[in-house]
Amino acid sequence: MTPINLSQKLSLFSDHWSPKIVGELNDSYVKLVKLKGEFIWHHHENEDELFLVLHGTLLMKFRDRDVTVRKGEFIIVPRGVEHMPVAREEVHIILLEPKTTLNTGDVRSERTVENPEWV
Amino acid sequence: MTPINLSQKLSLFSDHWSPKIVGELNDSYVKLVKLKGEFIWHHHENEDELFLVLHGTLLMKFRDRDVTVRKGEFIIVPRGVEHMPVAREEVHIILLEPKTTLNTGDVRSERTVENPEWV
Repeated sequence: MTPINLSQKLSLFSDHWSPKIVGELNDSYVKLVKLKGEFIWHHHENEDELFLVLHGTLLMKFRDRDVTVRKGEFIIVPRGVEHMPVAREEVHIILLEPKTTLNTGDVRSERTVENPEWV
Repeated sequence: MTPINLSQKLSLFSDHWSPKIVGELNDSYVKLVKLKGEFIWHHHENEDELFLVLHGTLLMKFRDRDVTVRKGEFIIVPRGVEHMPVAREEVHIILLEPKTTLNTGDVRSERTVENPEWV
């Protein structure tokens, strides 16, 4: 029951596309992640994901449209929906998703992080 | 899959202690709430709750200590733990909790909101 300071936690890492766990509640983790460039197309079979933008502007690509998510905004990507996050400049986000969620969803690649660390 | 702007949603209501739903994912709701003054002592039997402070400074009282949660910080209150949020000045928070969560937990009072609205 310690307060977690988002800026302080974000200062502890600089790698991109590698979510860090900062909290857990119910069946979910709260994670922070820094994004830059393009991720990969993927979906999550059983998990909805929340992306809240803390810094920068996230472009969330879907197969039928692109959605811009600015600082102070969040988007929820429902299970089963293919998406690809893109960050033209560095973006910092807070992610909320079930503990079972793999960052690359149905795809395995060099971007897959099997066991995210706590920071 | 529309981006939700937190400031815009916060501008739509002004009542205190009345959580508004702004999103749902998995078994949880994302809610916004404005706090001012003291709430009541309560706990949630089966739900952990996340409080992320967007504006102001939240004082979270526990039976054995007080914890200050500032803008840009979050705290997770585990199930079963008695707590009382206090806001000396107005505080805005984003709450994440299972859909089954009643704002006053194990207590029924005039502060109880049975069916939070969407905004």
